[in-house]
Amino acid sequence: MTADPGDGSGSSGVRTGERDALRRLARLLPPAPGGEVWFGDDAAVVGVPGTDGLLLLAADAVVAGLDADLELTSLADLGWKAMAVNLSDIAAMGGRPRHALVSVVGLRPDEIEALYAGVVEAAEAYACPVVGGDLSGGAQAVVSVAITGWCDGPPVLRRGARPGDSIWVTGPLGAAAAGLRWLQATPKVELANGVPAAALVRAHARPRPALAAGEVARRLGATAMIDVSDGFVADLTSLAEASGVGFALTEVPVAEGATLEEALAGGDDYVLVFTLPSGADALVPFAERGVSAPYRVGSCLGDPGQRLLAGRAVAVAGWEHQL
Amino acid sequence: MTADPGDGSGSSGVRTGERDALRRLARLLPPAPGGEVWFGDDAAVVGVPGTDGLLLLAADAVVAGLDADLELTSLADLGWKAMAVNLSDIAAMGGRPRHALVSVVGLRPDEIEALYAGVVEAAEAYACPVVGGDLSGGAQAVVSVAITGWCDGPPVLRRGARPGDSIWVTGPLGAAAAGLRWLQATPKVELANGVPAAALVRAHARPRPALAAGEVARRLGATAMIDVSDGFVADLTSLAEASGVGFALTEVPVAEGATLEEALAGGDDYVLVFTLPSGADALVPFAERGVSAPYRVGSCLGDPGQRLLAGRAVAVAGWEHQL
Repeated sequence: MTADPGDGSGSSGVRTGERDALRRLARLLPPAPGGEVWFGDDAAVVGVPGTDGLLLLAADAVVAGLDADLELTSLADLGWKAMAVNLSDIAAMGGRPRHALVSVVGLRPDEIEALYAGVVEAAEAYACPVVGGDLSGGAQAVVSVAITGWCDGPPVLRRGARPGDSIWVTGPLGAAAAGLRWLQATPKVELANGVPAAALVRAHARPRPALAAGEVARRLGATAMIDVSDGFVADLTSLAEASGVGFALTEVPVAEGATLEEALAGGDDYVLVFTLPSGADALVPFAERGVSAPYRVGSCLGDPGQRLLAGRAVAVAGWEHQL
Repeated sequence: MTADPGDGSGSSGVRTGERDALRRLARLLPPAPGGEVWFGDDAAVVGVPGTDGLLLLAADAVVAGLDADLELTSLADLGWKAMAVNLSDIAAMGGRPRHALVSVVGLRPDEIEALYAGVVEAAEAYACPVVGGDLSGGAQAVVSVAITGWCDGPPVLRRGARPGDSIWVTGPLGAAAAGLRWLQATPKVELANGVPAAALVRAHARPRPALAAGEVARRLGATAMIDVSDGFVADLTSLAEASGVGFALTEVPVAEGATLEEALAGGDDYVLVFTLPSGADALVPFAERGVSAPYRVGSCLGDPGQRLLAGRAVAVAGWEHQL
């Protein structure tokens, strides 16, 4: 963890280090009409003529050398990841993905085909067909995905958490960072606890957006939700800031083979953090719908300045995007 | 004009030089369900739960150094252009724009703000608010826009032209290319016909998507439509190939100050080419709706191999995207 005061967050625009730039841009942009959300959440929420349903829109670009090291990541994995980070934005609203557009810059035709193998695998795995896009030359590989999703009821925003709400995560944390650590290690050594490296590398290379969990959390009445893209504490802090609450973490589910630091700040886990009204329980409803049990990790506090882990102040840290 | 047999076209994927790559990708992608269009047109056409309306989706990336020369183009103009090329894709379907997502790679915060000035101008001019996006570092400036649009009836595809249909363009051709020629010229000389350079430079720097014309053409029963992004002959050839027809051009409306070559192959004009059933006329309906009169330029032929200009074979040429 670093001392850097980033905000961490998802992809409809707000990521660590992007924040100041977006705050300046916000002055240029008109406000969203009632019932819609433009910028500032995992996905934008907009109406559609002739129906009460809500369309979700998100876009996220993956840049080779910044978001993925092509020495360590295959092009198919890059394609999967470009889709997964966008699918995770739909999951974080409690929506269902509908369609994706994929724009590829700076890859040769054979490389594009290799990338698309992973794109199509993710599209099929999450029923989100790629319906269009763009191919262009360029000096650096950039894969820009835009995604649409659908919600038949109000989506879960970042800003609805209230003091006393319980805080949950949909899976253990830190596996992706531990996988990256193994990939970067020379020589390769066994990771802690004898956990097979392959499982951790897979968590890094093929993150799985928590779409089923997001939808269950929404139907259960989650008050706020965000995906863990930049780091658990950083993303939880974004949720807490948007909601005007603090938080007290009582436990953190660390993935087997990962360190506590990786679980707190590693990023790229794409599990969801959500909050429930005091007294509500998520375990039974998740089990009834066949979704892996979430972990209760703490609760929201009335003082937005209080961010506690096991009773001690926790520093915000996470993946920082340089502009 | 070159002898290169490109196909030229819009942005939901198929552009000159991208074509082989997309043909290979098409094998990886599932077919669209009935009533939808995925890839191969200016925008994808998809259904929406609970309504008969159709959602249009398009994405197009603008790469600095390839699609725009930042020595000649301001960042505000680049932002306008990134929006305009996507808005034009919605125009080419006869739809209305709804929302845009803008992902920016490789610009500093102050540069992003300058870019957004043009983005927001275009968003306001065409009632298409920017509702989300992404900011990221990178070695080269890339602006990826994804856009949604709406059609309350069937959109106009590229593939519906029939032999005998008349061919129309919504405005004169070649002004953008003439403006670029003036920008690149050293020393600056007066253009032909005493046309002020400013008007041509503006056509290059601030292309105006033909949204009103596209909607009128659709309501009028246009059988096929495409926007002129790569060059008039190249884009008309894409329409003709998709429809399985040839064409005979009898006249070409050359913009004041442009050459015939610029009108035929210059690209970036963002006027629309559309076809009407034999006997139908566009002049009165356009005038009644207050839209500038389109130009009747020729008719469709039964032999797809025949591509004629004033009775002579015309070579396909246009902007070539290198991958």
